[in-house]
Amino acid sequence: MKIAVLGTGMVGDAIGSRLIELGHEVRMGSRTADNEKAAAFVAKHNGKASAATFADAAAFGEIIFNCTAGGASVEALKLAGESNIDGKIIVDIANPLDFSKGAPPSLLPSLSNTHSLGEEIQKTFPSAKVVKTLNTMWCGLMVNPAMINSGDHTNFICGNDAEAKQNVKALLNEFGWKNENLLDLGDITSARGTEAVLPIWLRIWTATQNGAFNFKVVS
Amino acid sequence: MKIAVLGTGMVGDAIGSRLIELGHEVRMGSRTADNEKAAAFVAKHNGKASAATFADAAAFGEIIFNCTAGGASVEALKLAGESNIDGKIIVDIANPLDFSKGAPPSLLPSLSNTHSLGEEIQKTFPSAKVVKTLNTMWCGLMVNPAMINSGDHTNFICGNDAEAKQNVKALLNEFGWKNENLLDLGDITSARGTEAVLPIWLRIWTATQNGAFNFKVVS
Repeated sequence: MKIAVLGTGMVGDAIGSRLIELGHEVRMGSRTADNEKAAAFVAKHNGKASAATFADAAAFGEIIFNCTAGGASVEALKLAGESNIDGKIIVDIANPLDFSKGAPPSLLPSLSNTHSLGEEIQKTFPSAKVVKTLNTMWCGLMVNPAMINSGDHTNFICGNDAEAKQNVKALLNEFGWKNENLLDLGDITSARGTEAVLPIWLRIWTATQNGAFNFKVVS
Repeated sequence: MKIAVLGTGMVGDAIGSRLIELGHEVRMGSRTADNEKAAAFVAKHNGKASAATFADAAAFGEIIFNCTAGGASVEALKLAGESNIDGKIIVDIANPLDFSKGAPPSLLPSLSNTHSLGEEIQKTFPSAKVVKTLNTMWCGLMVNPAMINSGDHTNFICGNDAEAKQNVKALLNEFGWKNENLLDLGDITSARGTEAVLPIWLRIWTATQNGAFNFKVVS
C-alpha cells in the first residue's frame, strides 16, 4: 500500500520504517521537500522510501499517518491540502502537548478536556476518516507490541467511520497487535480520553525512567 | 485506628465499610450531622460506625479519607476546619469532575491540566499530608483489588511526605493491595496525571459497559 507519513520525528521514523519493513511504499512528508531528517530516512531505506512536501506526500498516500507534533498537526494537514486528503483515512497518532508551561508538558487547553486534537482534525477535514490510535505509548511499542509482556497490552482506537477503523486494525495487526488488545472506544470524541493519557504516561515515565511500558486494561 | 471518612456517597460507603470490616473505627462526616445516607451507613454497621459533621469527623480521625465530590472537596475540608486537619494524613480519593458540560463529565478547568485537586488541597492545608491514591478506579476495586485479575493491577500513589505514603501503603495492604502493584509517582503534582485518568476511564466504562476494570502497567 502507498502510505504517507507526515512528520520526521521519532514517531514518523518508527512508523515509516516499520511500514517499509512490512512491504509498504512510504513517502515522508514535511514542510519542505529537502528536510534533512526526511533525507536521512530515505537514505537509510535504500530506495524504498521517498520524501516530499506535506502536500506531495499526502497526494501519494492511500492512507495518511499524522506523526507531526500535536500543536502543529492541523497546520501541517492544511499544508497537505484538503484535495490531497479528501476521503482518505488519517491515522492520528499525535498528542496536543503544551511545552510552554514547563516540564512535564501539559495539554493545550484549546485541544483538551472538552475537545481533542482528533476531533479538531476531523472537524477541519470533514470528508477525511480520522482514526485515533497508538498515541498512548512510546513509538517503539506502537510498531512492535511484542517487545513487552508478549504483546499483551492495550491499544485504544476511536473514530467515526467503522470501515476506516477496520482498515486501520488490519494495519495494526501487521504491526503485531492482536485484536483482543485493540479496544474500540467509539467515535472520535473518545480522543478526549486517549489524549488525556499523556499526563499519566509522562508521570510514570518520570517515576520509572523507562518508556517501554504500556497500560493493559484488565477486568 | 480512628478514621474519618468525609463524604456519604458510594466511595465513602465502600471505604468506610471496608475499614470497619478490617477493625477500624469509622466516623463518616457530612455537611450536617443528621445526613440520611450517613445515618443509613451507621445503622448497617451496627454500632461500629458513627456519623457527624465534617468538623467532628475530622477531629475524631487520626487519618482522614476525602471521599467527597471533587468539585466540593476543598469547601468540605474547610468546613472540617484546619485545626481538625492539622498534621494529619488526608487520603484524597476525589476527582475534580465537571458535570456542567454534559456527559461524560470533563475535568474542572481550574483543577486540571496545569493543576489538580490533590495540589489544591495540599496548598489550602499546608500542614496536612495529602496522599492521592485509589482515584483511578471503581470503588469496589479500591477496597477489594482481588476482585479482578487476582489483584494484579496498578494503583498509583503520590504525595509530598514519604512517611505519610508509607502509612497509606500499609492501609492499602490491608485492603488487599500488594506492594508490587502500588506505583509511587512522586510528589503531589503527579495528581495532575492520576486525575487525568478519569477521561479515559469514563470512555472505557462507556464502551465496555463494565466498571470493574483497571489499568495494569506492564513493561
